[in-house]
Amino acid sequence: MNIALDMMGGDFAPLEAVKGLQLYLSADSGAATIFCIGNETQLQQLLQEHNIANDYIKVIHAPEVIGYHESPTKALKEKPNSSISIGFHLLASGKVDAFISAGNTGAMLVGTMYTIKAIEGVLRPTISTVVPQLSGKTGLLLDVGMNLDCKPEQLNQFAILGSLYSQHVLNVENPRVGLLNVGEEEGKGNALLQSTYPLLKENSKINFIGNVEGRDIFNDKVDVTVCDGYTGNVILKLAETVYDIAVHRNVGNDEYFHRFHYENYGGTPVLGVAKPVIIGHGISNDKAFMNMIVTATKMIESDLCNKIKESFTA
Amino acid sequence: MNIALDMMGGDFAPLEAVKGLQLYLSADSGAATIFCIGNETQLQQLLQEHNIANDYIKVIHAPEVIGYHESPTKALKEKPNSSISIGFHLLASGKVDAFISAGNTGAMLVGTMYTIKAIEGVLRPTISTVVPQLSGKTGLLLDVGMNLDCKPEQLNQFAILGSLYSQHVLNVENPRVGLLNVGEEEGKGNALLQSTYPLLKENSKINFIGNVEGRDIFNDKVDVTVCDGYTGNVILKLAETVYDIAVHRNVGNDEYFHRFHYENYGGTPVLGVAKPVIIGHGISNDKAFMNMIVTATKMIESDLCNKIKESFTA
Repeated sequence: MNIALDMMGGDFAPLEAVKGLQLYLSADSGAATIFCIGNETQLQQLLQEHNIANDYIKVIHAPEVIGYHESPTKALKEKPNSSISIGFHLLASGKVDAFISAGNTGAMLVGTMYTIKAIEGVLRPTISTVVPQLSGKTGLLLDVGMNLDCKPEQLNQFAILGSLYSQHVLNVENPRVGLLNVGEEEGKGNALLQSTYPLLKENSKINFIGNVEGRDIFNDKVDVTVCDGYTGNVILKLAETVYDIAVHRNVGNDEYFHRFHYENYGGTPVLGVAKPVIIGHGISNDKAFMNMIVTATKMIESDLCNKIKESFTA
Repeated sequence: MNIALDMMGGDFAPLEAVKGLQLYLSADSGAATIFCIGNETQLQQLLQEHNIANDYIKVIHAPEVIGYHESPTKALKEKPNSSISIGFHLLASGKVDAFISAGNTGAMLVGTMYTIKAIEGVLRPTISTVVPQLSGKTGLLLDVGMNLDCKPEQLNQFAILGSLYSQHVLNVENPRVGLLNVGEEEGKGNALLQSTYPLLKENSKINFIGNVEGRDIFNDKVDVTVCDGYTGNVILKLAETVYDIAVHRNVGNDEYFHRFHYENYGGTPVLGVAKPVIIGHGISNDKAFMNMIVTATKMIESDLCNKIKESFTA
């Protein structure tokens, strides 16, 4: 399999991307060929310095970079030779099977929607985050910011997308889906939640267990938690601080608290689009880059996007 | 000052209420007279057993109790001699200055709205939770579940109510108000957040610092965080599990993590109504009851409700 990696995205690029690549190769060399997109001169030198120039690495020159504060649509149009534009071109044309970038999030989302496109039947693609659970298992929360306002039918689709990701990428068997609400009883919540509940209940493609509450997210009660992107984004960022708090209280090495460190999941896949796209954190370090590559390989190996297509065709 | 305490509310009532009273009296005897509402025979015996029958305790007999699963409106109508009904009667008639109960939350909310009523000009009263901050300070988050869907003008009022509570009860000088959003920049968020931002910006009664994110809630960046009641409720319950997680990871005694234990704040005041009402957690223990009494005394001493009235008249 072939994976395109934007070497110029992220606050510490390209160095951390190179170091991440090195980590990945030392653990899993040969599983994937990595197309490294970025400034060729700069990259060749760094790859050489890190002794990772080999057959599994292809450097693709990108003379331009889309900055963090550029307008996504404008930048994608005006910089066809940016690392992000080239990455989408490689993915859309089938030269690679997945594209990863920790660059401008807006440009990644716009590029995904316009170049890779939503799978037929998917109303709105979504982004998710994995959730460390006390039991050791890994939950999934979605949407975490791509769709701030949601309609019931969208939340119902997020449940399907999240279930398939949980099952095929996180290896959770028959994942339990919960609707994030203010109480457990059916009928709780506002109009959106009350209208979403029966859709989830009648959805034969998921294993709906009912409403769940804020306290259930980190417990082993639910595998896939569905909510609107505003609430999900707030939780995502709040969860990220759990690790910071643990460090502040001198328990940053605790096995559980450490799982809240963003580097351990690295990035968020866009779900519901035709091919695997993974968007990284701006502060991505080497481990984050490595884990994004690992996630990409799992998405490719599990053939997730086709499983989603099948589910939405059936 | 006089405070009415529903001794029959909460999973471990009346024993924990009595023990909480004992804790309060041993620390702050004489500051307030507590009207203990409940089964007189049962209460007299427990008070005697705990040696807390004194001049600062008045037992008010309530032959009925509103159960957890009773319909609030129906129960309030059919049980005028329940501890909750009597509490509201004492508060409305001016015999006491505050009312505390850990009983049926719905009955407490309905009773508050119909008996104590919203302050003129307040569109929707709100409930809040205190937030332990890493700096040692105490933040405030609202709404946490009373208003699941909100309009911009309501969020704008929550900002005023929260500021006054933060200033007068939590003793935060010139509290910084933040709007919980998915990014810091003005213009971020959905239609609700985009419409709320200018109202907060132009509101001369508050010290608005702009949008804040999930990561800022536990940091010393904002004192009063405003959001809709759905998102706030999810965060409230999620924050409560931080203590459980800490216990699970053997750091429950950590000074900071321990502040997430619900018993340390005990209950949530209803803000924007004419008199102090505090609603407790169903699982309230002795410390929770003690802290609810302490919060009630602070609300009375600071004359918070009149300060809110003045602010909404001005």
